[in-house]
Amino acid sequence: MVKKSIEFFFDPKSVAVVGASEAPGKLSSVIIDSLISSGFPGRVVPVNPKYSSVRGLKCFPSVSEIENGVDLAVYALPSARTPEALRDSAGKTRGAVIVSGGFGETGEAGKGLEREIKDIAKETGIRVIGPNCMGIYDAISRLDTFFIPRTRISRPVAGGLSIISQSGSFAITAMDELAGEGIGVARVVSYGNKADVNEADCLRFLAEDEHTKAVAVYIEAISDGRAFIEAASFCASKKPVFAIKVGKRGAGALSALSHTGAIAGNYEAYRAAFRKSGVIELDGYEEFIAACKAFGSGSGASGPRVIIITDGGGMGVSLADACVEAGLEVPPLSEDLKERVQDGLPSYFSIGNPIDLTGSVTDEMYADALEKTLSDDSFDIAIVAALWGPPGLTDELPSLISERSLAIKKPVLVCSPGGAFTRSKSELFRRSGFPVFQTPEAAVKAASILARASASRRGG
Amino acid sequence: MVKKSIEFFFDPKSVAVVGASEAPGKLSSVIIDSLISSGFPGRVVPVNPKYSSVRGLKCFPSVSEIENGVDLAVYALPSARTPEALRDSAGKTRGAVIVSGGFGETGEAGKGLEREIKDIAKETGIRVIGPNCMGIYDAISRLDTFFIPRTRISRPVAGGLSIISQSGSFAITAMDELAGEGIGVARVVSYGNKADVNEADCLRFLAEDEHTKAVAVYIEAISDGRAFIEAASFCASKKPVFAIKVGKRGAGALSALSHTGAIAGNYEAYRAAFRKSGVIELDGYEEFIAACKAFGSGSGASGPRVIIITDGGGMGVSLADACVEAGLEVPPLSEDLKERVQDGLPSYFSIGNPIDLTGSVTDEMYADALEKTLSDDSFDIAIVAALWGPPGLTDELPSLISERSLAIKKPVLVCSPGGAFTRSKSELFRRSGFPVFQTPEAAVKAASILARASASRRGG
Repeated sequence: MVKKSIEFFFDPKSVAVVGASEAPGKLSSVIIDSLISSGFPGRVVPVNPKYSSVRGLKCFPSVSEIENGVDLAVYALPSARTPEALRDSAGKTRGAVIVSGGFGETGEAGKGLEREIKDIAKETGIRVIGPNCMGIYDAISRLDTFFIPRTRISRPVAGGLSIISQSGSFAITAMDELAGEGIGVARVVSYGNKADVNEADCLRFLAEDEHTKAVAVYIEAISDGRAFIEAASFCASKKPVFAIKVGKRGAGALSALSHTGAIAGNYEAYRAAFRKSGVIELDGYEEFIAACKAFGSGSGASGPRVIIITDGGGMGVSLADACVEAGLEVPPLSEDLKERVQDGLPSYFSIGNPIDLTGSVTDEMYADALEKTLSDDSFDIAIVAALWGPPGLTDELPSLISERSLAIKKPVLVCSPGGAFTRSKSELFRRSGFPVFQTPEAAVKAASILARASASRRGG
Repeated sequence: MVKKSIEFFFDPKSVAVVGASEAPGKLSSVIIDSLISSGFPGRVVPVNPKYSSVRGLKCFPSVSEIENGVDLAVYALPSARTPEALRDSAGKTRGAVIVSGGFGETGEAGKGLEREIKDIAKETGIRVIGPNCMGIYDAISRLDTFFIPRTRISRPVAGGLSIISQSGSFAITAMDELAGEGIGVARVVSYGNKADVNEADCLRFLAEDEHTKAVAVYIEAISDGRAFIEAASFCASKKPVFAIKVGKRGAGALSALSHTGAIAGNYEAYRAAFRKSGVIELDGYEEFIAACKAFGSGSGASGPRVIIITDGGGMGVSLADACVEAGLEVPPLSEDLKERVQDGLPSYFSIGNPIDLTGSVTDEMYADALEKTLSDDSFDIAIVAALWGPPGLTDELPSLISERSLAIKKPVLVCSPGGAFTRSKSELFRRSGFPVFQTPEAAVKAASILARASASRRGG
């Protein structure tokens, strides 16, 4: 059997929700809410033999009775009833998203049910995402099968970053955090136990998806290493792909097993596969989020040379330390550049790298120092560590530095640790399009990933 | 000359502000605001020959003309005028805080002025904090000499953590962040260029300060290594002392030099000094804040064995990975404990370590699993990774788990990554007295510091 592409999952004209119910709080009910509030432009078709209508929509007793079928059916049924419902959909849907748990992750009975799902997918040609997953949040086609309400988990705006994740909770937590950071996404796929559709299918689709500019992958275990390397290499040849492998060793590896029933395997083999495919490996949740913020907000870097500009000396030193430890370069300014930056600044300012604009800083000093250094050939990335104590900093700072640095097309990362006042100002930076990091470590992680992506491009 | 203790800095009955001005925004003006809004109960005495009154307070032309003198004088004058003003205060104040910059950190002229300050301190017996510093924020005596307004930098409530810092911006950023986290402080000292009072003086005072339960230290450079080791050993024998040394190597070390004029020296020598003194070394800002949150909110740990409880499998695996990498232990549950935890939970829940309560979690399940595992002898620390997607979690969760775990007297760290909804719930955790961490990495850093402190206590 030739496997069809999974492209149709990301542009369905009609979606059935199997197990639809009027009862608020039920998974199926939240999924219908998600479809409606995402502004899904297609047809939503509730399926449940108990109702003739749900939420004012005509309800069908089964998928097989929907005239002309649907493009996609989402199954929110107890695991034991799912195989039969899937089989009943043969010829009536191209894709299935099975959100329910109670399959391979739960023991022998569940494993048997999951094998049945696999077999039915093969027999019917229905492509299956899941089980034990959230399915798809697609900001481009406005498809949202996630069963967590928007009041609890915010959805990001449309953007160029796509995320694929074995863990649903990891995917939604990341999405929720990115939504708060103003970072946009294209396609998010939570594929869970991957009875059929796996990371390789997703990577092949995302490689050729014009809306996707970068891909973030969360992996617990890969069963078909060769297919992964092939798909990942193909995707990484077209756009940055970065991946986190969790369940590395010891307790982590054991817990991954019980989470999605996947054997986490030898971590070193994963690292080798990433290297071979040109995938940039991420270490942990914080680096995953940092990568999403760095790639989700624009320009890539062309090297590892960082200029640090701050008004807080201690924070500058901490950033320089963290850069050095991460293998980034923090080169000194050339004499000529130093003179140009010094021009117009008080003589007691410390114009090195970091540039410390001190508590006497103004918006204009920041913009000027950033423009002069970032446009110089000796730097690839800027970290602006804006501490909001100094009275000379105003609400104009974010838009001013955006105006003066945007045309330079090099990444500017904002590092702004602090409390309530600072956080309100961070929002202004986000609105001006900057990724904002609350700790020096997070900002440096983002810079390091941009530099690694640049090295990997040059290497390949 | 026998050096007097610096204890009087932390309980003055009267504070002069030298260079006082009516002009809003001036350093001296903000300092008077800080003293007033901190609720400082003593006398505030403006000093400036230009005014007869400032802010309705009688203004003196010089410190020498204040009848009976003051306990403390804060100098906010241009650097060139400071030595004369300090000399004029001889016999009229016990302590001086010199906030102005323009001394040793700025070149030869500044270095000369700083030497003068040192000499005058010796001659007059006035103890001097600074120059180039913020001075003291003391939540116990309600003294606040920091020249950044509270609208920009929030002040933490009173608590048991004391912070001493060479960098003023680092100190205020940390304070601001801790204020937002609900973590209380006792004494915060920003000592800048330490012409006189240095980290050793502060550590000796804090060792015997009954309000201080733990001490956090930010260091760029130490000039008198032997005095530091002596004072740090003394303090660490009485309470946990943790320290960050910034300006470690390369660009970081260079930038520390221009920041406070200090030669950062050989990083390995610092590490050896920390080890010798029983000081727990912290790596970077994020770990500094994690340590402050861990020690600022209660019970220490008695070992490195972590139980992880979550409703998000992927987050649990990520936490387990991070624990293993940090050298913490994530031991499995004994068969007996496993059975007791399993009791009353659906059979498909994954009761290992991590315990994954899944999307079907309720408040009661969290409280029950936490109480049973944390009270077991096999665990020293709990990390509760509460993801707020599941509908069964309510606003009662934080107080419920507080009620059920408080008596056990082991640290419970909350890890709650996510967006707006989650952050609003994190506030409930804080109000129930839990330290809250936004990433698995930060929570694990806190657990690791608690475990290191416990090992260091046992080792000493």
